Formats: sequence, structure tokens, C-alpha cells
Amino acid sequence: MSAQAPHNTLLIPGPIEFDDAVLQSMSHYAESHVAPDFVKVFGETLTLVRKLFQSTNPTAQPFIISGSGTLGWDLVSANLIERGENALVLNTGYFGDSFGQCLETYGANVTHLKAPIGDRTPLEEVEAALKEKSYKLITLTHVDTSTGVLSDVKGVAQLVRRVSPDTLVVVDGVCSVGSEEIAFDEWDLDAVLTASQKAIGCPPGLSIVMTSGRAIQAAQSRKTPPGAYYASIANWLPIMQNYENNKPSYFATPPTQLVHALHTTLTQITADVPGRFAIHTEVSDKVKAAAAELGLKQLAARPECQAHGMTAMYLPEGLVPADVLPGLLKRGVIFAAGLHKEIATKYIRFGHMGVSVTDPKRGDVDNALAALKEALTEAKQAKGL
Amino acid sequence: MSAQAPHNTLLIPGPIEFDDAVLQSMSHYAESHVAPDFVKVFGETLTLVRKLFQSTNPTAQPFIISGSGTLGWDLVSANLIERGENALVLNTGYFGDSFGQCLETYGANVTHLKAPIGDRTPLEEVEAALKEKSYKLITLTHVDTSTGVLSDVKGVAQLVRRVSPDTLVVVDGVCSVGSEEIAFDEWDLDAVLTASQKAIGCPPGLSIVMTSGRAIQAAQSRKTPPGAYYASIANWLPIMQNYENNKPSYFATPPTQLVHALHTTLTQITADVPGRFAIHTEVSDKVKAAAAELGLKQLAARPECQAHGMTAMYLPEGLVPADVLPGLLKRGVIFAAGLHKEIATKYIRFGHMGVSVTDPKRGDVDNALAALKEALTEAKQAKGL
Repeated sequence: MSAQAPHNTLLIPGPIEFDDAVLQSMSHYAESHVAPDFVKVFGETLTLVRKLFQSTNPTAQPFIISGSGTLGWDLVSANLIERGENALVLNTGYFGDSFGQCLETYGANVTHLKAPIGDRTPLEEVEAALKEKSYKLITLTHVDTSTGVLSDVKGVAQLVRRVSPDTLVVVDGVCSVGSEEIAFDEWDLDAVLTASQKAIGCPPGLSIVMTSGRAIQAAQSRKTPPGAYYASIANWLPIMQNYENNKPSYFATPPTQLVHALHTTLTQITADVPGRFAIHTEVSDKVKAAAAELGLKQLAARPECQAHGMTAMYLPEGLVPADVLPGLLKRGVIFAAGLHKEIATKYIRFGHMGVSVTDPKRGDVDNALAALKEALTEAKQAKGL
Repeated sequence: MSAQAPHNTLLIPGPIEFDDAVLQSMSHYAESHVAPDFVKVFGETLTLVRKLFQSTNPTAQPFIISGSGTLGWDLVSANLIERGENALVLNTGYFGDSFGQCLETYGANVTHLKAPIGDRTPLEEVEAALKEKSYKLITLTHVDTSTGVLSDVKGVAQLVRRVSPDTLVVVDGVCSVGSEEIAFDEWDLDAVLTASQKAIGCPPGLSIVMTSGRAIQAAQSRKTPPGAYYASIANWLPIMQNYENNKPSYFATPPTQLVHALHTTLTQITADVPGRFAIHTEVSDKVKAAAAELGLKQLAARPECQAHGMTAMYLPEGLVPADVLPGLLKRGVIFAAGLHKEIATKYIRFGHMGVSVTDPKRGDVDNALAALKEALTEAKQAKGL
């Protein structure tokens, strides 16, 4: 924690704790967005996004845009699908609902395949839906931040290519990119949208979207103009291409300090991408085992549906988040309350991503598990449970 | 420059130099966007935006959203006007063209009143246009960053209220808010959109929009749904209201570090808003006098059309920006090249906003004027002029 003011440890499913060097990049002195030094950094950062996605296909195209992760939904909905076309949303919670609303805003006909809370839709059901009508795109939330459910991105992508090869495969990776394995080219994905503040370990404020050549082609061959201006692929594409080719370019001013921070964290992450996934899996296993030992059930019941960067745990009967979170805070640990509206008062969420996982010297995860045990005991005693 | 690494002085029309305290706020440790401390800071920042606009009308509503200034155009175009309605764009350059494109993206019928380069459309012409058909909204660029032309916001607003009182008055204040006088309530404006990185003195990455009760009413009484999701007033309004009432709320994760930086700079600025305008005018007068002494003509010929936070100057015949900017850089000063596409190679732009103006100890403006004189002399000699 050396360079940072003393503070409670933020272990929610994003924003997350920062590496010192990343945070220092945020206070970079003022720079022109078209100055050679910044152009180089922005261009390199785009190339690092390719590495993050293990992508070497030159037709794939990364975008880094000032905005929240939510903006990525608009980038997809306003460019990759047209009014009256069909979208299939594999809905595993809060974020599937909202992505669907975004798609409808831009005129898509949205069909939701809702999985039960804590589970994902079986591939057979997805296959049946894909055979029923023609879908321009299918979306799935890789990790649903509200429930910690992990989707089978590789399996769904394979299925789509087999059953409905022209359907674009769109992944909401806000809560997965940086902690869950994604092989963009190999899995033949069309768009993965994410944000800076979760497993990527950068402060919030960047919408990051990786697109395939097929997706860019879909955007460029629209019969109607894009549905948005700020979220228009046509407006951003030449900018991203120019910056990556080391040429200054202007559509809107990029958030220079955040781009520096992203450059710093992606340089760290891409030094060993498989290693990053492995350590997140290892620490996640440890958290899940510890939770089980405390008698806490996960929302994601089946192991294959469990995310590796967060754990959503039901509280013991009789306890609500407000009984436990203050006890954690007293011990310097911040978890999040439930978010899925049907069961929000029944569970808590523990985010274990980024530097809290990759830097064991911090002791963040061990401290959190110890604090959780104490806070639970205390809460049960207070309630006479 | 104490706390910042040594660097050339950034004197373009945004981003601008930062105050040390503002930059330090950028490296604030990780926080949850719904934690009490952050909710308080975000709420206070919204209230500070009201003060910045000298607004006390409780029906007015500020928005602070992760994004570039450009996003403000979408917020206006997707919410305050509906498909098929008319928009009148008072076009003083590059940014009028683009705002018009954004409005058209969302289906507005756009009429441009184009002023000659370096000038603004006379009020009589605006009046004639307003009498010709019914406009849902009128937009004007307060300061056109591409040319340094200052529009008569107060005059246009008065005219609209007299001739077409229901027309919404929308001001693009990206390059004016913080350096040009704006009295939001008194001038009876409906929307002023701006960004963090110009005269507000914060790093880039925040879209800041101030709206009137009339504008919010227009958004809420639409016959059709908003044209965008991320840029939807309906999605953001409860969030902004909740934060200002000290209640956590979620639609998309706010850029916590940038909000801290905005809080810091707005606290400084709002300590004396009229004083801030006065010092920008004083320094601008000095820059303009010095430019005249060097024989440099401004793009904005008439004094009443000249911005106070920047100066766009024609170079002497025979010189292009690439002849002069490197000479400035050698002396530690960064100016911008021309941006208006018809004359981009004929002029340069000097941004004098924020801490470079308000903190005379820095000597930024005096150093820049001295460097400009030397660089010009050098360039003329090199060209045998």
C-alpha cells in the first residue's frame, strides 16, 4: 500500500484495489491528446488490448473510449444491429435485463432466454432458440456481476458457428476480462465489451470494446446509419486505426490520464496472460473452499457456473447484508451487498480480482476471509442465531 | 510545478495545465462508487456545478457523466428533440458542423446558419430564421475551439425568449465554461454542455451538462422513447438526484478519480466565479495586445467575437504552423495548430485558461508570449521573410 493513503481494502466486484504504479499514472502531467508522446502511448495501449484478448488477427479492432462499461452496450446496439432485427439475450441476471433494454432503445427485437438465478441457460435451449428464428446477434454476460454466474462463452460461440454462423457473438465482459480466460480469435467471438475498473485494475472511466472483422463488416454494411453519434463505430474506427499507426487523430478528446493508467496495467497483465487466469482460478478456489467451510452457499450452485474473480454468497438464514458488511468494514474490508433485485437482501459479493489476487504480499484475500469469519460469528451472535 | 514532473507547458485550447491539488486527486485510492464518502463527494460536486453556472433554480439539473464533451451532444440530441423536429444550429465552425451531424443522427431536421469564418451570425438573421419555422431547439457554440470565436449567448437567449419562447436554447460550452461568463438562470438557458478538460481545469473524461427545468420537462414529455441508452436523461436523472441527496445509486459506474479531481477544481473555481471571469478577460486582453504588437491578426476580427480563454492567430503570410510550433516547443511551450479545415494551415491557437491564467507565479502566459516572439522571428528568418 506504500504510495497510497491508508484505506479500507476494496474487495467488491469492481472498482478494485490499484497497483501503485497504475494509480501514479493517473496523475500524469497535462498532455495534448495529439502530442507524439501521447499518441505513442495510446497506440501501444490499443495493441496491448489485442494482447489481453490473445488476438493476433489484424482484422480484429480494439476501441478505447471515454465512458463507463455501459457505453459498450450502446456501441454494440447502435452499430451491429439494425431496427427490426432480432437479438437473443442469454440472460443470467441484472445485466442481461439492461443490455436488452439498450438493444431495444436502438430498435432491436429482443428475445431473452432467462436462466434461473445462479445458473445459465443450457446449450440445448440456446440451440433450439437459434433454430427458431434468424438472429443478427446473440449476447451473453460472461460474468454477471450481480450473481457471480460464469457463462460458457466458448461453448456458446461454438454452438452459434455450427447452428447460425452469421449471428454475431457479443460478450459482456465487464466483470470477466482480466480474470476469466478469453481467446478472442480462437473462440471466434465478434465483440467483447468491458470496462477499465474491474479485473483490468484501472480506475473507472474507460469503455473498452474488442471487435472482430466480421463485426466491423456488419457495422460498415448497415442499410441505415448508426443509431448513435458518440457511440458510432464509424466515428471511432479511423481514430483507433490512426492512433495504433502512431498518427494523431481527433473525434473527441481521449481521457489522457486514464489511458496512461490503462497502459500501465495492461503492460503488467500482458506479461503473462495465461498466468493471470491461473492465479485468479487458484485464489477463487481458495475463496470458495473457505466460504463452504463457513457454511455459505454460492448463488452459482454448479462449479462450472462459478466466476473466478468474484464470489456471491448467500448469508445464513436470518442475516441480511447490513448485519455483516459493517463487521467487515470494522476490520478494514469492503464487500458489496446483493444486487439481483429478487434476492438482494439475502447475499453478499466478494470481488477477488487484480492486484489483491496477483500480489500475495498484500494479504488482501487472507485478511478478507479472516474478517468474514469473524464478522459472521459476530452477526450470528448479535441475532442469537 | 512543484508536485509534477518537469514538462513543457500545455497552452492549447484544452486539455490545459493542472493545479497540483487537482492532479493529486486523480490518484485517490480505490473507492466503491456507492460508498458514503464517495457519494458525498459526488453529491457535492453536482452542487458545485450549479455554483459554477451561477444557478440557484432548484428545477435546474446538472449531470456529470463518464465521457468526452462530445457525449453532451448525444445527451441533447437523443433527449431534447424528437425525430422530424427542427433544430437551428448557429454555426461558427468545426463544432457547429459536428453538433449538426449528431442531431441528424437522432433524426432532427437541422438548419445551419453559417457565419463567415471568424465571425458570428447577426441577431437579425437569427430572428428571421426563428420566424420562418418552428424550432424545437437552437444550438450555439459559445466559444468555437477551432477559431476562437465567441458567440453572444445572452443576446441569442433573449432573442429566442422574445421571438420563439418555447425553443430550447442549447449552448455548447466545452471551450467556454470556466473562462467565459455564463449566468444560467438569469440568461434563461436550457442546456449548457461542457467537458472537464478545458477552463474547468480537470483532466479529460467527464461530460458535464447543465439543464433547465424546461429541458427536463421536454425530455420527460417525449412522445417517443429517448434515442440513446447511455446518453438517456431518463436513465441518469434519478442517479444525479439521488447522489445530490446523498443517496447511493447505480446506472453505470462513475469515474471516481475524475469526480474527485472535478470536486477539487470546482471548489477552487466557485470560491469566486466573477473573479475568475475577470482574470480571464484581463489576461486575454494582454495576449491579444501582444499578438497585435507582433503583427498577428486574430481569426475573430471583431473584439466582441473574441474568446477570453484562447486566441486563434493567423500566421504571417508564408508561414505554416509547422514553421512556428517547433520553435515554441523548443522553448517549452505547446500551442495548437489550426483546426478549421478551410484554413487549418494558416493559423495557430493559444489556449490561456485555468491555472496558467489564475496563478501568475507560474509565469505561463508571459513565457509563452516571449517564446512566440522568438519563434516567429526565427521562423521568418529561416524562410527569408
